[in-house]
Amino acid sequence: MKLWFDTDPGVDDALALAFIQQCPQFELVGLSTVFGNASVATTTANALGLCALLGLDAPVFAGAAAPLVGASRLAPEVHGGDGLGGQAAQLPAVRRSVETLPAAEALVQAARQREALHVAAVGPLTNIAQALRLDLALPERIASLTVMGGAFGLHGQSGNVTPCAEANIHNDPLAASEVFAARWRCLRIVGLDATQRVRIPRARLEALAHATPAARLLHRVLQPYIDFYRRYYGVAALVAHDAIALVPLLHPEAFTWRTGPVRVVEGGLAHGQTTQDWQRLGGPVWAGLPDANVAVDADPDTLTPLCLQAWLNAGAPP
Amino acid sequence: MKLWFDTDPGVDDALALAFIQQCPQFELVGLSTVFGNASVATTTANALGLCALLGLDAPVFAGAAAPLVGASRLAPEVHGGDGLGGQAAQLPAVRRSVETLPAAEALVQAARQREALHVAAVGPLTNIAQALRLDLALPERIASLTVMGGAFGLHGQSGNVTPCAEANIHNDPLAASEVFAARWRCLRIVGLDATQRVRIPRARLEALAHATPAARLLHRVLQPYIDFYRRYYGVAALVAHDAIALVPLLHPEAFTWRTGPVRVVEGGLAHGQTTQDWQRLGGPVWAGLPDANVAVDADPDTLTPLCLQAWLNAGAPP
Repeated sequence: MKLWFDTDPGVDDALALAFIQQCPQFELVGLSTVFGNASVATTTANALGLCALLGLDAPVFAGAAAPLVGASRLAPEVHGGDGLGGQAAQLPAVRRSVETLPAAEALVQAARQREALHVAAVGPLTNIAQALRLDLALPERIASLTVMGGAFGLHGQSGNVTPCAEANIHNDPLAASEVFAARWRCLRIVGLDATQRVRIPRARLEALAHATPAARLLHRVLQPYIDFYRRYYGVAALVAHDAIALVPLLHPEAFTWRTGPVRVVEGGLAHGQTTQDWQRLGGPVWAGLPDANVAVDADPDTLTPLCLQAWLNAGAPP
Repeated sequence: MKLWFDTDPGVDDALALAFIQQCPQFELVGLSTVFGNASVATTTANALGLCALLGLDAPVFAGAAAPLVGASRLAPEVHGGDGLGGQAAQLPAVRRSVETLPAAEALVQAARQREALHVAAVGPLTNIAQALRLDLALPERIASLTVMGGAFGLHGQSGNVTPCAEANIHNDPLAASEVFAARWRCLRIVGLDATQRVRIPRARLEALAHATPAARLLHRVLQPYIDFYRRYYGVAALVAHDAIALVPLLHPEAFTWRTGPVRVVEGGLAHGQTTQDWQRLGGPVWAGLPDANVAVDADPDTLTPLCLQAWLNAGAPP
């Protein structure tokens, strides 16, 4: 499965990369970076360093520094000022430098060149929206698009940056609107409703401190992130959003899916909120929108061991 | 418990009135009507007729015919053109005529005259908002306000008239905003998250057809309403929103509550959506708003027999 990974590393992005590296089903053909958890300069440097740490050899393309409109909002309180919990300086020297082609153009080219390219996007959707503007046929060229983003209010939580909105979508609601309105062959949206169902207790992550060199660094990267979630939820547990969002590519059956068009609220109190018309109530503003598959639940008993196994072996041959 | 009931009968409003009549804990001191399930002329006539049917002697005050701004949206597809599933003409002759005082003024007077008045509002919140505009001290004068309205996305459903909005709040979002921003001594919001957890199968309602005269008429009133829900949910069951919303006054423990300020989205895709900042994420637009108690779940095993018992004896001495 040829995979393009659009990412803003980011603590959980690092865990997602380790998951990709450990899954022999994936062939990582390209990485694009975007602002989000940190500035795009930082997320690009982190992507290059994480590839060196994990022995990944895919080209890295730098993407958007800000949303399609408005200003960017970063998350140093969650991911640290360096995007990796203060551990970015511990990454090994990079093996290759960033590519010169901008991320959106690189994605368009990759989609034209390759059969059955799968795209996973775990940051703000700015690069994907820009690629779509460059090539309106992109959705037909790509085998699937899997997005980490949004919150649909299941299980009691509707947002994490505002009461209505999840961070990735809130960071560029217009990009998300454009992406969700396109006719992808397969569009999966994995939001907080699914990712937050998998809370891995800190104690279960201790084994990482005694595993591969990459796992040991990941263990240190995780600690301030877990501290944030402890303050936020009162539970010292890891919520590995971006890693969880990759799993549907391999194991869609570990999630519960709901089908229907998805729109994004722009402006006002609910700015950046995702909404799915799964009951087909919507009327004119929903007419003609394509269906998306929204993950409304996830099975922790399947996902926790799958992730832990990958992270423990991070950087070793898969 | 002195009760003021603000209502738009309405099939489930009729069930709520039967519940009130059968609960000796309630002393119904006044009824105010509002547009919503049908026009205010219709809901007022129905309120008078239902009081005659059930032997209730409270004064009935006619309220708002339209929201604070904009036009009203009625629900003949759910409640029938007459608001009572085509059975309104079967109600007995009314015992008393509607009062001359407008509903909002009557509520303000009642709150000034009585100690410990409890208000339950199960239609659009226009009358309550108008009363609040007439007397900003109303929230301190009233012992509690219980609202049937809103949807907070728990259990997978966010709205019933749009993907984001529940009908009562969607019918007058500005009124709801004003009401939810006031400092009530106790504000309970019972929305779809709670009311829709209690689905009473049609078969369990058959006993109404062989009970008191009022119960027999209620049974006929219910049938088209259940037909609507069967088409809507695929389940031939009764969702008695307005009756369920009264139960917290007597049995708050039959519900799960979440505390935090509540706001209403005005305009755009999410127009009429309710949102609660129970995580205290909100920032400036949420600062200083008072807390509300939102019912996020309800126990059908407690609520179903409680309601059935009341409806079976409707009109008989409690």
